[in-house]
Amino acid sequence: MADSLSVAVVGATGAVGQEFLTLLVERRFPFRSLKLLASARSAGKRLAVGDQELVVEELRPDSFAGVDLAFFSAGAGVSREFAPRAVAAGAVVIDNSSAFRMDDTVPLVVPEINPQDLRRHRGIIANPNCSTIILSLPLYALHRAAGVKRVVVSTYQAVSGAGARAMQELEEQLQQVQRGGEIVARILPVASLPHHYPIVHNVIPQVDVFAEDGFTKEEWKMIRETRKIFHAPELQVVATTVRVPVLRSHSESVAVELERPLSVEEAREVFASMPGVVVQDRPEDQVYPMPYFTSGTDPVYVGRIRRDPTVPAGLLFWVVGDQIRKGAALNGLQIAEWMRQEGMI
Amino acid sequence: MADSLSVAVVGATGAVGQEFLTLLVERRFPFRSLKLLASARSAGKRLAVGDQELVVEELRPDSFAGVDLAFFSAGAGVSREFAPRAVAAGAVVIDNSSAFRMDDTVPLVVPEINPQDLRRHRGIIANPNCSTIILSLPLYALHRAAGVKRVVVSTYQAVSGAGARAMQELEEQLQQVQRGGEIVARILPVASLPHHYPIVHNVIPQVDVFAEDGFTKEEWKMIRETRKIFHAPELQVVATTVRVPVLRSHSESVAVELERPLSVEEAREVFASMPGVVVQDRPEDQVYPMPYFTSGTDPVYVGRIRRDPTVPAGLLFWVVGDQIRKGAALNGLQIAEWMRQEGMI
Repeated sequence: MADSLSVAVVGATGAVGQEFLTLLVERRFPFRSLKLLASARSAGKRLAVGDQELVVEELRPDSFAGVDLAFFSAGAGVSREFAPRAVAAGAVVIDNSSAFRMDDTVPLVVPEINPQDLRRHRGIIANPNCSTIILSLPLYALHRAAGVKRVVVSTYQAVSGAGARAMQELEEQLQQVQRGGEIVARILPVASLPHHYPIVHNVIPQVDVFAEDGFTKEEWKMIRETRKIFHAPELQVVATTVRVPVLRSHSESVAVELERPLSVEEAREVFASMPGVVVQDRPEDQVYPMPYFTSGTDPVYVGRIRRDPTVPAGLLFWVVGDQIRKGAALNGLQIAEWMRQEGMI
Repeated sequence: MADSLSVAVVGATGAVGQEFLTLLVERRFPFRSLKLLASARSAGKRLAVGDQELVVEELRPDSFAGVDLAFFSAGAGVSREFAPRAVAAGAVVIDNSSAFRMDDTVPLVVPEINPQDLRRHRGIIANPNCSTIILSLPLYALHRAAGVKRVVVSTYQAVSGAGARAMQELEEQLQQVQRGGEIVARILPVASLPHHYPIVHNVIPQVDVFAEDGFTKEEWKMIRETRKIFHAPELQVVATTVRVPVLRSHSESVAVELERPLSVEEAREVFASMPGVVVQDRPEDQVYPMPYFTSGTDPVYVGRIRRDPTVPAGLLFWVVGDQIRKGAALNGLQIAEWMRQEGMI
């Protein structure tokens, strides 16, 4: 194990990439060198990292010589092409894209839940989908305490999940609304698809492209990734994923059917004992999690905890977490921290 | 039955009251006189009704002399005080507040579903809660076709549901965001409660005040009113109601467990055959309902129709409808139109 690491960030100019740079400094991750990689379009840009300023380099096949740890957040296509090259060059890859998540040979990890899966990695480790990570923390706490049988989740997802350009689009549309002009939609819901819709004064019930049976890929990610992280292939999850005009925190409304009933008080204790979870649940004082207040912070926040009277052991809750932090960059860095602590990198 | 009616609108300056005035003209409702009533604060204001301009009068105990039909939308307190006076003066009252909805002697009516309940009225007819009406149309279509056992619904509710002042608050906060100043929250989630939160860049998981067991009154309205409208006291409904930064259309994510399975194609036909429902469901063309496009229109729109693979006869759908139109004023006027057609007023 080296004293400190040579780190590369692929997609350094993106929303998640930039947050990763912030967190590397904020959490004093021991790096001796830092390589910022992006497409040719972004090469030459300068980015602040702590009190340094670093120049973005073009991502190339030979970019990973001497790199110990590479964090990828530049889309599945880039990961599929370059992650194996980084591994071949000797790096450990933590990949924030969907490229390898459901690959049986690749660990898919939320460090508070299944860190031991990291021990069987073969070079690539997958960071789960943002909505999945945020749901997984409180859900796993329940699963451990009372067994989760079925989950029905509806999401209220921030535009940051569609990247820095989507965040800019929301900001621009907010200006267009004020000027009273036309609302121009070019990015959301999915930049590469033919139809784009305004996100101001709107909610869009499409996150990612449509897959099988009328579900979106985002919905299938929540279903399949949760099962893999929990090692629970029989877990029943069904999701409806929706984009809302919020910058960077996702919210989720969750109905769970448990093996054994939990009272609201018991559920609060179960959630509070889970690392990474903060309970904000005092309805009598109007205390519940909201994305306006959680953005830029690390935990996921749980509130609106209620017994669901329509099933024998049902529980309802509301969870909010910063999509760029715990939903992406923070979880990725926590994976690296765990491996570092265990002497794996 | 008179040739034409003397109509009063209580709460004429509110968001729903004003829409009622628009609809009276748009739908050529046969009124010979129209009395606009509101609090002393609003008395003297002039409102356009078609090509007329009418002066708002102060609501007083003697306001209803000679009135045939009074539409109330000024809150439960006003309805409790003045609706019985209007009935005593000989008027039929259609009440948009929650004051009488769960009163066994008061019909609670969505005209496409249970118009026959109007026949047993004793002067007051209750207009259901907005989220309830919007859910009820597609849900009743399923109930009739395949029997609904259980419903899990999460809402994405427009600010119009909290009245004209909440709509103004969203507009003001959008300006404050642009000026980069402080966001001032005085109305949402509930004007009369101590804590107010921004609605721009936010979603608020509280609509109306908290009631029993951690549920809000809005959530209980969706549960209890749906049962009453459907004449289905055993129907299992559980709701999480959430405010989003949208001006006037509510969206709802719905998971239904049916008595008998329906295919997606069958469900589309069932929805399409329901009066007041428009199916917008072509995921391959990114066609699904969105509040940005439905506002100001009459139907409720259904899309994202999918089989829920986690239960034997499960179905998921997404419904969007204008909160002020079908969710409030339009439904109220449709009640009056049905009664008029049947010679009841």
